[in-house]
Amino acid sequence: MHTLTVELAERSYPIHIAPGLLHHPELLRPHLRGRSVAVVTNETVAPLYLETLSRTLASLGITPLQIVLPDGEACKNWQTLNQIFDALLEARCERGTTLIALGGGVIGDMGGFAAACYQRGMPFIQVPTTLLSQVDSSVGGKTAINHPLGKNMIGAFYQPGLVLADIATLRTLPDRELSAGLAEVIKYGLIRDLDFFTWLEGHMQGLRSRDEALLEEAVYRSCQHKAQVVAADEREQGERALLNLGHTFGHAIETGMGYGEWLHGEAVAAGTVMAAQLSARLGWLQQADVQRVEALMRAAGLPIRGPRLGAERYIELMRHDKKVQEGRLRLVLLRALGHAVVSDAAPEAEIRAAIESCCQ
Amino acid sequence: MHTLTVELAERSYPIHIAPGLLHHPELLRPHLRGRSVAVVTNETVAPLYLETLSRTLASLGITPLQIVLPDGEACKNWQTLNQIFDALLEARCERGTTLIALGGGVIGDMGGFAAACYQRGMPFIQVPTTLLSQVDSSVGGKTAINHPLGKNMIGAFYQPGLVLADIATLRTLPDRELSAGLAEVIKYGLIRDLDFFTWLEGHMQGLRSRDEALLEEAVYRSCQHKAQVVAADEREQGERALLNLGHTFGHAIETGMGYGEWLHGEAVAAGTVMAAQLSARLGWLQQADVQRVEALMRAAGLPIRGPRLGAERYIELMRHDKKVQEGRLRLVLLRALGHAVVSDAAPEAEIRAAIESCCQ
Repeated sequence: MHTLTVELAERSYPIHIAPGLLHHPELLRPHLRGRSVAVVTNETVAPLYLETLSRTLASLGITPLQIVLPDGEACKNWQTLNQIFDALLEARCERGTTLIALGGGVIGDMGGFAAACYQRGMPFIQVPTTLLSQVDSSVGGKTAINHPLGKNMIGAFYQPGLVLADIATLRTLPDRELSAGLAEVIKYGLIRDLDFFTWLEGHMQGLRSRDEALLEEAVYRSCQHKAQVVAADEREQGERALLNLGHTFGHAIETGMGYGEWLHGEAVAAGTVMAAQLSARLGWLQQADVQRVEALMRAAGLPIRGPRLGAERYIELMRHDKKVQEGRLRLVLLRALGHAVVSDAAPEAEIRAAIESCCQ
Repeated sequence: MHTLTVELAERSYPIHIAPGLLHHPELLRPHLRGRSVAVVTNETVAPLYLETLSRTLASLGITPLQIVLPDGEACKNWQTLNQIFDALLEARCERGTTLIALGGGVIGDMGGFAAACYQRGMPFIQVPTTLLSQVDSSVGGKTAINHPLGKNMIGAFYQPGLVLADIATLRTLPDRELSAGLAEVIKYGLIRDLDFFTWLEGHMQGLRSRDEALLEEAVYRSCQHKAQVVAADEREQGERALLNLGHTFGHAIETGMGYGEWLHGEAVAAGTVMAAQLSARLGWLQQADVQRVEALMRAAGLPIRGPRLGAERYIELMRHDKKVQEGRLRLVLLRALGHAVVSDAAPEAEIRAAIESCCQ
């Protein structure tokens, strides 16, 4: 088992990573206050892992409230969030009840936001069951729901008390979602670890064939990066923004196509290629670098071209991004492979040209 | 002008108290980041003070986005909160936009919760225009909306960067709401300042006839208490719970009657008498003490008896309170006038008897 800590003073918390962790009550026990537990999951994950988790809790004398939501990014909204509040209130859950989010990024984001808001904050545990949520969204305390006018627009910074990444749950993950998670893994290499990027170039086939030792290593190295960045800049005043490489373009794709058409990781992959292409237009990357990015994304089974929304529409959607300041687009770009920066240096004509060259 | 500070390390903020502060741009200027400002208010307050505040902002070169909501506790819900998000997103407000809540407790609670959640947190200023919000809800960072199953069940701890309490706005406050605010003023005397309680006994007529010097003094002393308690216990792990004297009974009244029937302060007044009566049943207060509480509440124009919901219904509703732990009712009671404690010592039969004796 790999374990690391997100260092946030009195709010520090551990991340455990290994196959089979859902069967280990001793990892959960120290993080439960009292016996009241609510598990938030969805209709896809519930038949696969809810009974396993419930049995593990039962061995601690706990019968959890089970809250099973519909599946999908399109459900990451007020209505579904309210289903969680309704269930918690109907069961008279107190603010000492622990909420466990069992599922992917949507469940983690929405469960976390519910935990942040219910009675102004209840204990919260992340049990991510997708690669994307294990390497990215379950760590760092960003929680949110979507709004028709923008993704993740309504939310909170709210840290979990524990993250349990059970690598064995990746066995049931659809190929398309495994690929989507790999987009965020590749991201860490691109923004701050060229060695890791090179390691991924060498092991992409093994990762896609779900070698558990390789997956555990990839999740561990990704979480190390995420934990370091979050510890240095919890509220995204600076360095943490680098984690959004490809995300401003990607959010435009997701919003422009309607939530759920493109997976988040797929949109990030195409958006990352746009960011790399724009970096090349600014003279920061070589075309050979851009080709390495494209090749690794393709090897991961990811799209490297965005949908033809038109550059104007992309830019309009990108203006809703949370990183916009005083109307200026600020983008995460690559000074080199393994070295990202936040910059508003790109002229809009260049942004437009980079987008056009990266649409299919 | 009275000024005091809520001491919360890097999140400390000033409270300014005096008549006419809405006309003072220099108090706002240091707390605005950039020129983007949204003012959240309601249909009652807007015709009275929105133009004044907008003129003051105009003198700083700022044209605020105006978000005018319907009035009343019944509107403190998801739907109205979403109106704020819709307006902010349609106007493309960024996370650096400052949200100013101009109004009473409902506007402050809902505006503050919107500020806490919009893009995971935007700068926030409280401009309370009711006595209740000036002495209580605008200070301390509790924000929330109601849920059909309980008051203030969904919310966040989110501190403002500034509180401007313009005493002159109390001139337009309906008598009934002035009285409701006095319930919270009396509360501070009861829980931690017998001198202040005695001062209030001597000045209640002057306060009700809106002597501005007396009102400023009452707001200042109340905010001093609130600021001290919040600085010592921001997240209500201990002492802060004492501020809820009368509130658990009061919430039962508000929920049981439907939000908006009883004003919050009215419910707190009747609830405080119940808490005093229960404290007497436990041998902590004399009946003469209870009579002093009743007399001062009556002098403030407040109800001292609750509606006849039946003791069982009261207790059922009280079990939804956020202070409940492992199913046990924890109440704020009075060891003496000026000395409150949180206690689960009262047997349910005594709670029932105290409620019955305090219903009309």
